[in-house]
Amino acid sequence: MNDTLDPVLKRLREDFDGAVERLSTLLRIPSISTDPAYRPQTRAAAELLADDLATIGFESTVHETDGQPMVTAHHRGPDSDAVAHILYYGHYDVQPPDPLDLWETPPFEPTIVQGPHGKRIVARGAVDDKGQLMTFIEAFRAWNHVHGALPVKVTVLLEGEEESGSPSLDPFLTANKDMLAADVGLITDTGMWDIDTPAITSMLRGLVYVEVALHGPSHDLHSGMYGGGVINPANELSRILGQLKDDRGVIQIPHFYDDVCELGDVQRNEWNGLGFDEAGFLAHAGLKTPVGEAERSTIERLWSRPTCDINGIWSGYTGKGAKTIIPASASAKLSCRLVADQDPQKVYDGLVAFLHERTPPDCRWEIQSHGLNPAVRVPTDSPYLQATLAGLEAVFDRKPVLIGCGGSIPVAGSFQRLLGFDPLLVGFGLDDDRIHSPNEKFELRCYEMGMRSHAAILDQLSAVTAAARPGLSPGTTAGRVPPGSAASRPAPPTRTGSGS
Amino acid sequence: MNDTLDPVLKRLREDFDGAVERLSTLLRIPSISTDPAYRPQTRAAAELLADDLATIGFESTVHETDGQPMVTAHHRGPDSDAVAHILYYGHYDVQPPDPLDLWETPPFEPTIVQGPHGKRIVARGAVDDKGQLMTFIEAFRAWNHVHGALPVKVTVLLEGEEESGSPSLDPFLTANKDMLAADVGLITDTGMWDIDTPAITSMLRGLVYVEVALHGPSHDLHSGMYGGGVINPANELSRILGQLKDDRGVIQIPHFYDDVCELGDVQRNEWNGLGFDEAGFLAHAGLKTPVGEAERSTIERLWSRPTCDINGIWSGYTGKGAKTIIPASASAKLSCRLVADQDPQKVYDGLVAFLHERTPPDCRWEIQSHGLNPAVRVPTDSPYLQATLAGLEAVFDRKPVLIGCGGSIPVAGSFQRLLGFDPLLVGFGLDDDRIHSPNEKFELRCYEMGMRSHAAILDQLSAVTAAARPGLSPGTTAGRVPPGSAASRPAPPTRTGSGS
Repeated sequence: MNDTLDPVLKRLREDFDGAVERLSTLLRIPSISTDPAYRPQTRAAAELLADDLATIGFESTVHETDGQPMVTAHHRGPDSDAVAHILYYGHYDVQPPDPLDLWETPPFEPTIVQGPHGKRIVARGAVDDKGQLMTFIEAFRAWNHVHGALPVKVTVLLEGEEESGSPSLDPFLTANKDMLAADVGLITDTGMWDIDTPAITSMLRGLVYVEVALHGPSHDLHSGMYGGGVINPANELSRILGQLKDDRGVIQIPHFYDDVCELGDVQRNEWNGLGFDEAGFLAHAGLKTPVGEAERSTIERLWSRPTCDINGIWSGYTGKGAKTIIPASASAKLSCRLVADQDPQKVYDGLVAFLHERTPPDCRWEIQSHGLNPAVRVPTDSPYLQATLAGLEAVFDRKPVLIGCGGSIPVAGSFQRLLGFDPLLVGFGLDDDRIHSPNEKFELRCYEMGMRSHAAILDQLSAVTAAARPGLSPGTTAGRVPPGSAASRPAPPTRTGSGS
Repeated sequence: MNDTLDPVLKRLREDFDGAVERLSTLLRIPSISTDPAYRPQTRAAAELLADDLATIGFESTVHETDGQPMVTAHHRGPDSDAVAHILYYGHYDVQPPDPLDLWETPPFEPTIVQGPHGKRIVARGAVDDKGQLMTFIEAFRAWNHVHGALPVKVTVLLEGEEESGSPSLDPFLTANKDMLAADVGLITDTGMWDIDTPAITSMLRGLVYVEVALHGPSHDLHSGMYGGGVINPANELSRILGQLKDDRGVIQIPHFYDDVCELGDVQRNEWNGLGFDEAGFLAHAGLKTPVGEAERSTIERLWSRPTCDINGIWSGYTGKGAKTIIPASASAKLSCRLVADQDPQKVYDGLVAFLHERTPPDCRWEIQSHGLNPAVRVPTDSPYLQATLAGLEAVFDRKPVLIGCGGSIPVAGSFQRLLGFDPLLVGFGLDDDRIHSPNEKFELRCYEMGMRSHAAILDQLSAVTAAARPGLSPGTTAGRVPPGSAASRPAPPTRTGSGS
C-alpha cells in the first residue's frame, strides 16, 4: 500500500477512456515536420499541447524557432531545494505517412482495432511519439488531480522537428540553458524489451543524413539522339552508390571505421548469448535471410556497427509508361548510422570525398546535410536511473532491462553536451509497432502501463534528494559496467523504440 | 515554271498564317499518351485531325483500339490504277511535359518567339510530331484547294501511342492490312541535316524498354532499427544497375553483342571523315566531354552501337527533408537502343537474365516490357525515294542527304514486316529542337519548308507510274550501297529527328 501513488494509479484507471480520447485528438493533426506544406498543422499540435499543459498546473509557452515551434512548460513542484528537477522530453511531429496506399485506415484518423494484446490505436504518430509523450502528460494530469501538485520540479520540452533532423534543437537548448536547467532528462521515445518487460535504453546510434544530387546535361536529353555518346547521371549515380559497400558489406567511405569502438570479446559473447530471435526479427520485415557485414552476427551489426543506407533515390521519368530520356540529374538521400566514437563531421567529410573522387566527366555534385549526430552512451550508475528502474519494477512487477537502440535520438546527446545533465531513455513501444511505416500502432496496454510507470517513477524520484544529485557523469563505456550487472544485459535492438 | 506545283506553293505562302493557327490549335491539346489521366485529351486530338482531314477531301475515321484511337483517312486520287498509292504516317500524341518548372512558357500554350532562324513556335509536340504531321496535311489542303484533288492515291495513318511504346500499332496494322494497302509509307517524324539541307533517314536504331522493380522487405523499415542487418533494395538496385556497364562502357547483359552488325573499316572511315561537330553536339546538351564505349568515336557510338540507359529510377522517400527508412522496393525504367541485326527479344531475355543472376537474398523482381522494336534499314534504290529526293531538291535548291538516326521509329519496321512496303523517312526537325525536353520548338521556316516539300514530293510521286513500282525490297545493308553514293553519306545523328 502506497498512500501517495495508489490514488494516482486509480485515477489513471478511471480516466483511461479520456486519455485515449485526448491522444486521438492529437493524432488527428498531421504534424509532418519535414514537409513545409504542413507547417500550420505542426503549429496546431504544439498549441494543443501547450494549452493542455496549462490546464494541469504548468506554465506553458510556445516558442518560435527558425523551424517548427518548441513547447516548454514548468511546474515548480514542492517548495524545497532538496527536491529533484526533471526535464521530460517528447516530440509532437511525425513522419510523412507515405506510401498512403498501404494504410488500412487513414493515417490521421486514429482507429481502435483489436490485436493479440488487446486493443491498439492505429495512426501515424500513435507510438512515435505522440502516444509516448502523452504517457507522462497523463501521469502529470492524474497526479495533479489527486494531489493538486507534482512531487518533484518538472520542466517539459516538446520538440516539433525530431523527424526532420532537429535543426532548431541545439540552438534552442544553447539559448535557453537556464530556463531548461534540471538534474536529469527523461526522454520517452524508445521501446520495451517485450510487452511484459520494461526497458531503459542506454546506448543509441548516431546519424549522418545527406541529400545528394548529381547534375550532368543542361536538360533532359532524348535517349535516341544522345544515348551512347553522353554521360547519363542516373547510370552514374547508380554506379557510384553501388560502390558504397564492397562484396563483404564493408562501407567504402574513406576513414569511415577509423574511430569505431570495436566490440570486446566479452561483450560480443554476452550479446551473442542473449538468445536473440533472429528469425522473428527478420519475419517482422517479411524477410528470412540475415545480411550485412560478413563475419558479424545480426545483433552486432544492428547494435555495434555503423551503416550506410540509401533512404531514397530519384531521377528521370518515374510516371506511368515509357519516356525515353537521359535525365539531366539524379538524386539520393543517404544516411549513416554511427556508433561510439565516430565523429559525424568526419563521416560527412568522408562521404563527400567518396563522391568527389568519383565525379563523372562534366558532372557536379550538390550536397546538403540533413543532420549530423554522434552516437550516445548513457551512464547507468545514477540515483535517477535507479529510481526509474524501481518505478518501472513497481508497475510491471518485473525487473526492467537495460538495452541499446539502433536508432538515433539526437536530443540525448544534446542534453549531455549543451545542458550538462544526462538523459534517461524510458519508452513503451514494441518492435512490431511499424514506426515510420504504414499502419503505425500503439498498444493501449502499453499506453496505460506507460502512464502508470511515469506516475510510479515520479513517486520514486520524489525520494531522490538534492544531496544525492551527481554532477554530469562523463560518458560511460561498456567496459565500466561490471559483467553480469543489469547494464551489461542489453536486449536486442529489435525490441527498442523509435528514434529517428 | 511548273504549272501544277507552283500554284500550290503560292497557296501555301498565302495561307501560312492559317497553317500556324491550325497547328497552334492542335498544340493546345495535351495529348500525353503515356499518362491515362490524359485519355480524353488524346482522343480530342485524334478527333480534331479526323475532322480536319474530312474538310479537305478525305474520308476519315477514328478507330478504337485497346489504347489510344488510331486515325485513318483516304483520298482516292486520280481514277487510274497506274498512279502511286502513298501512306502518310504521323503521331498526334506527345511526351509528358515534365519537368514543368524548366519551361519558359506553358507547354500547352503555343508561343511564337524570335530565334536566330526567325520565328519559332514553342510548345510540347511543336516538332514531335504535331508540327511535322501538319506539314503533309497542309500540303494536302493546298493541293486540294488549288486542284480540287490530290495527284496520287493517299492514305493517312495518325497514331496516338508513339510516345508510349505503340502497343496498339502492330495489332492495328495486322487487322487492317487491306485498308492500309499502299506502295510506300511516308513517315514525317525525323530531321534535317541542317536548316538549309533536307534529309531522308535510312537507318534507325531499335528499342527495348523495360520497367523493373526490386521488392525486398514487406514494408518500409526504420533504418535505425533494421539498418545494417537487412537487405536494402535501394542500395541493391543501385549496385546491380551500376554493373550494367564495365569501366570501358561495355554493356554486361549476356549475349548483348552477339548479333551486332560490326561497322566495316570503309564505313567507319567515311563516318569519321564526315567532319562531325562533336563539340557542338555536346554543347547542345551543356556538356564538353565525349563518353561511351572506349576506342569508338562519338559518331560510331551514336549511330552504330547499342546502348543501355536508365531513363528513370525511384525508391523510398523523395520528398523534402529527411526520412530514415529502408525502402521496401526500388524501381527503374531501363532502355536499350538496338542496332542491326540485334533481336529485341534476345536483348530483353538477356536483361532479365542479368537481373536474375544478381537477385539479392529475399528479394524478387517485377519486370514489365514497354516495347521491343528492332533497328530498321531502309532500301535506298526505289523510285519513291528518288522522287522524294527530287521533290526536296526542288524546294530547297540543294541536294538532300541520306542520314541515320539514333532514335527509334517502330512504325518503320512495322510497315516492312506487316504491310509489305518500305518506309520513307522525311522530316523537318533540327537537332536543337529540344524534343522530349522543356521548351520544345519548331522553326516556322522548317514548318513552311516542310509543307512546300510535301507539295513538291506529291508532284514528283505523281510521275511514278505503277509500272515502276518495285516489290518490297529486302532490308538493304550498308554494304549494298556503293561507297560514295548518297546513301553512304549519312550525316551525324545529331542532325536527325525525333523518334521515340
